[in-house]
Amino acid sequence: MLRVAIAGASGYTGFELVRLLSAHPQVQLTMITSRAQCGQRLDEFYPALKGFCDLTFENPEAPRLVAEADLVFTALPHQAAMGLVPHLLVGGVKVVDLSADYRFRDPAVYQEWYQPHKTPELLSESVYGLPELHEARIRTARLVANPGCYPTSVILAAAPLLSKSLIDPHSIIADSKSGVSGAGRGASTAVHFCEVNDGFRAYGVAQHRHTPEMEQELSLLAGEPLKISFTPHLVPMSRGILSTVYAKLRPEVSLEQVDTAFEEAYRHAQFVRLCGSKSLPTTLQVRGSNFCDLAWRVDIRTGRVIVISVIDNLTRGASGQAISNMNLMSGFPEDMGLKLAPWQP
Amino acid sequence: MLRVAIAGASGYTGFELVRLLSAHPQVQLTMITSRAQCGQRLDEFYPALKGFCDLTFENPEAPRLVAEADLVFTALPHQAAMGLVPHLLVGGVKVVDLSADYRFRDPAVYQEWYQPHKTPELLSESVYGLPELHEARIRTARLVANPGCYPTSVILAAAPLLSKSLIDPHSIIADSKSGVSGAGRGASTAVHFCEVNDGFRAYGVAQHRHTPEMEQELSLLAGEPLKISFTPHLVPMSRGILSTVYAKLRPEVSLEQVDTAFEEAYRHAQFVRLCGSKSLPTTLQVRGSNFCDLAWRVDIRTGRVIVISVIDNLTRGASGQAISNMNLMSGFPEDMGLKLAPWQP
Amino acid sequence: MLRVAIAGASGYTGFELVRLLSAHPQVQLTMITSRAQCGQRLDEFYPALKGFCDLTFENPEAPRLVAEADLVFTALPHQAAMGLVPHLLVGGVKVVDLSADYRFRDPAVYQEWYQPHKTPELLSESVYGLPELHEARIRTARLVANPGCYPTSVILAAAPLLSKSLIDPHSIIADSKSGVSGAGRGASTAVHFCEVNDGFRAYGVAQHRHTPEMEQELSLLAGEPLKISFTPHLVPMSRGILSTVYAKLRPEVSLEQVDTAFEEAYRHAQFVRLCGSKSLPTTLQVRGSNFCDLAWRVDIRTGRVIVISVIDNLTRGASGQAISNMNLMSGFPEDMGLKLAPWQP
Amino acid sequence: MLRVAIAGASGYTGFELVRLLSAHPQVQLTMITSRAQCGQRLDEFYPALKGFCDLTFENPEAPRLVAEADLVFTALPHQAAMGLVPHLLVGGVKVVDLSADYRFRDPAVYQEWYQPHKTPELLSESVYGLPELHEARIRTARLVANPGCYPTSVILAAAPLLSKSLIDPHSIIADSKSGVSGAGRGASTAVHFCEVNDGFRAYGVAQHRHTPEMEQELSLLAGEPLKISFTPHLVPMSRGILSTVYAKLRPEVSLEQVDTAFEEAYRHAQFVRLCGSKSLPTTLQVRGSNFCDLAWRVDIRTGRVIVISVIDNLTRGASGQAISNMNLMSGFPEDMGLKLAPWQP
Repeated sequence: MLRVAIAGASGYTGFELVRLLSAHPQVQLTMITSRAQCGQRLDEFYPALKGFCDLTFENPEAPRLVAEADLVFTALPHQAAMGLVPHLLVGGVKVVDLSADYRFRDPAVYQEWYQPHKTPELLSESVYGLPELHEARIRTARLVANPGCYPTSVILAAAPLLSKSLIDPHSIIADSKSGVSGAGRGASTAVHFCEVNDGFRAYGVAQHRHTPEMEQELSLLAGEPLKISFTPHLVPMSRGILSTVYAKLRPEVSLEQVDTAFEEAYRHAQFVRLCGSKSLPTTLQVRGSNFCDLAWRVDIRTGRVIVISVIDNLTRGASGQAISNMNLMSGFPEDMGLKLAPWQP
Repeated sequence: MLRVAIAGASGYTGFELVRLLSAHPQVQLTMITSRAQCGQRLDEFYPALKGFCDLTFENPEAPRLVAEADLVFTALPHQAAMGLVPHLLVGGVKVVDLSADYRFRDPAVYQEWYQPHKTPELLSESVYGLPELHEARIRTARLVANPGCYPTSVILAAAPLLSKSLIDPHSIIADSKSGVSGAGRGASTAVHFCEVNDGFRAYGVAQHRHTPEMEQELSLLAGEPLKISFTPHLVPMSRGILSTVYAKLRPEVSLEQVDTAFEEAYRHAQFVRLCGSKSLPTTLQVRGSNFCDLAWRVDIRTGRVIVISVIDNLTRGASGQAISNMNLMSGFPEDMGLKLAPWQP
Repeated sequence: MLRVAIAGASGYTGFELVRLLSAHPQVQLTMITSRAQCGQRLDEFYPALKGFCDLTFENPEAPRLVAEADLVFTALPHQAAMGLVPHLLVGGVKVVDLSADYRFRDPAVYQEWYQPHKTPELLSESVYGLPELHEARIRTARLVANPGCYPTSVILAAAPLLSKSLIDPHSIIADSKSGVSGAGRGASTAVHFCEVNDGFRAYGVAQHRHTPEMEQELSLLAGEPLKISFTPHLVPMSRGILSTVYAKLRPEVSLEQVDTAFEEAYRHAQFVRLCGSKSLPTTLQVRGSNFCDLAWRVDIRTGRVIVISVIDNLTRGASGQAISNMNLMSGFPEDMGLKLAPWQP
Repeated sequence: MLRVAIAGASGYTGFELVRLLSAHPQVQLTMITSRAQCGQRLDEFYPALKGFCDLTFENPEAPRLVAEADLVFTALPHQAAMGLVPHLLVGGVKVVDLSADYRFRDPAVYQEWYQPHKTPELLSESVYGLPELHEARIRTARLVANPGCYPTSVILAAAPLLSKSLIDPHSIIADSKSGVSGAGRGASTAVHFCEVNDGFRAYGVAQHRHTPEMEQELSLLAGEPLKISFTPHLVPMSRGILSTVYAKLRPEVSLEQVDTAFEEAYRHAQFVRLCGSKSLPTTLQVRGSNFCDLAWRVDIRTGRVIVISVIDNLTRGASGQAISNMNLMSGFPEDMGLKLAPWQP
């Protein structure tokens, strides 16, 4: 049994990690931390989990984590993560970090969008944890940077088109819509039920921090630096992201080439499902699961391709993908503990 | 492996049965039926289930079902169920019936609230499938009548108080609130998003058909015939029932006696969780699970006890409980395939 | 033109007052206060109101309010209200207080459920502002205590039955369900979208502070002291209250007597609509309006009457009713500025 | 008083027309039609409107409409409208048509996206009823084609940029999100609460019929034919449209030029509000009103401008704009009866 701990377990991604790990046959959850809830039992804080976990929140002390766990999920705010992760690595523990701290190859990009990096030397070692792109490197990594929720949905939508050079790489526009759990569990007027209900809105237009993360991975696929337009929106629902990705097709590209690109890219992907030409996916059909469902349409009137991508932001966009990464890092099948049907309705 | 079929698999309870059975280690789903969807693949009708079931809907023919299955879930409308169930039993197949057709001991009660019964002789054999009350009889039954969603929530709330004679049995009022999936998947203006959203309402006041079902079971517990007031309401949410049950305490009954009644009644129940005196349950904490979570308060000002009961109407209120019954009828542990953490948020 | 000010205008009831007053032909809104938003323009804080109000939030200073207004709506938390109201009255200003501070005849009741009262001498003067019960006294009042949202819905449901002695006054149970705006605009985990969505729950069971307010008014109608059971619930919707009120009919009371009681009680009520025996009201049909819609059923099986009452908690349950009271206190028709059709869908 | 009738009054746009007209000081609603509800009182069908309208649905017979009304709103499905409108015009009645039948200058475009047109000769006469673009012609029109909901939101967002030649006209992408009332009141699985709730989805990708309507008006503004990419999405909320419009800025265009374009375009618009550089609009801030609120951002990284536009699809996107058009056609102030504050929360 792999001994696993969660640093920062009181939020929604923490809940989701506990929920999923409770059904994993090869994992023993040994420790959970939360400064704010320190000393409280998890199942008092989250009565839903009564009978599934009898742990008590502790403070996130590196020595205790090193002693208790073989692998730690760090579900902390960015900047807090890079204060803890190096100590875990030194202690010989593997880490799947759910923050943004280890997602960038280039410390200058991190500094531009976040703040100066404290441990830039780890950036060359950490692996961007999108299994469809980096499975081999994830398998041998000590430190995996779990992708952001929006980037997961957008990169999987655009990757086949870029890697086959079917689109103009400078024409990509990603219009994404997320459920409210993506904003975290903290109280604020912005997530007050009465402000969200019937209140669809955009935010962070042209300046959301997930933009450079998408650009890094999409540039790698394109083989040249590219920039994209990315607009996130808040949907009155709890879970789910739908991204609508637009790009200009290169001249003479046919629908068949587009179809083939997606089919080849995801032939062996366990958690990508292709919708076919007759249906369009809804966030409901992946809710609570690790799937990314994809559909695409070629618009001959405008010469553009439109890709629709849906994921569950807490599962595929965070905790489920983190467990996929843990599985790969530990030699387990990628889908161990994750073969759960989506929640509907 | 137990070979299992679902007659009437295209609705929400059908989806939920397939979802849950796909994670059951001792079951093989062999056949699904739906007149309306006959010939269509389940995973085209429900893209969420792609990868979990490759069956195609067939017509509900008894000989095919008898040939394919050891146990059949009949998730048909009432009246349709009693047209099929006798043929299955004759063929040697066990049945868990999710309709109302076999829930009543007394055919006259069924006739008063529904219509004349076609096979009243089976009513004495069928067992009311609430495991907390009838586990022993369920284990040996050929035919189990799966309880209604509202009755499950109300009977579990009131049972300990009646069986210990702590309340006036003629004072019970059950005010229940249900998510919209309880109305089924059929299209109607009543379940149009815009009619439900921000539109909380009561329906079937003083005449809902789940009333006599509750009265039958509560009368058995009280040892005398009783009648209750039951009012169902429609909540703008997809899943979940919360029942608020009021009753007059008998003179001199103490809070300690009430506490003890609940603790003793559910000490060995695998799917009932007691909330304690400091918290009140929400439908969210049982969503997608087979739990019934209970809390109660004694109001000394009015001499009443108020019990709050939450379940997921599709899981505990229908398909999850049906699988519990299947487990008991098949000699499996009651919670096999059902040890899944609730969905939150 | 009546000069009107709002003390405490930044919350939902403040917004609703501004919205409604902006359409009132005889009112000039002259001043709005909010400690937290002091110095900010209302239409920056609430962009929805751009073009409807160009005022800036000020601190709630009594001398300024006295100078600027003939009538002040105090939409402050309880306890804060009683610090300001006496100064306004001394200054010759009329007051409609939306807090609980002046709703009780008996300071001991206020003290038991809230805290000691600072100005108990004003309690005998203030009038409980439910126009259907106290219209004549409201017309001549200096100080009107605007009813709570739950009490408005419950008292209007039970009043005809009590005033005609058709029910056992000690048998009343009020099971109420409210949209989230009733909890106010303040940020907290309890009103986080993801905690409310799909998360129906009860709260304050057997101890909610609106209970004694209902008991005061219902006891007056019954002509004897009575106690009720009251349970509030939180519905995943923004606005609306539905109360289901149960009571034991006195022996021999007929449906006709019940019908007549409601028809006579509300024959001249401008803001109560009776639904008839064939339909049941939904919160949607009164949303954004000052109406209370009522339906009732006599259950001969149990000898109980069930009354369903729906209001908009922010309009009839707060700001709309406050304007009704202002109209009566100022000699305007009760419905001036309030003849607006409900919002649907 | 202007005598007004509504042909097709039983749907959501019909309800909204009645709601708004009931507050209009110069209009008398004289007749409403609905084949399906013929013979039923409106306030029985919509109890919300009790006290606001005592009319009964009639069949849509042209002679009756001509006799009863000076102006008729035709809120019928496309194709049905063009069967009735010519008869009304011949009878001397003015018409505001809410269907698509008279929106296109070119019958070939109508035929390509809908079906052959029965009265193409009226297309040159009818005026596209977007007051910000065509106010002068609307004032003298007999027949106004009320714009579609999506086109209203998109055209108002892009118009200032095109009319000042600030963008590449072939680069426009409109990603729109609508509440469910846009789908109408008819029952279908697609609008079942449980399918919509938590189920955000795109539909009609690259083939929605509102596309050519936008292209017609935007081409006029650009002075050259253009095509756009338009993707509609369904949001789990009842009302509201938010459109996110992307376009490539022409070289050297500055933020100041963009700001000026919007300010000049809408300086005299009574129902367009500009949000400024610090805030982004939500659908909630225009709900129930006739406003279109606009914000924009220039993204220097990508050379694109992003415009966010919000409207209420039933008010500005249908019935409110129809009344604006009626006002202009009748010599009333454009905002008569429409000066109502938005609904929040």
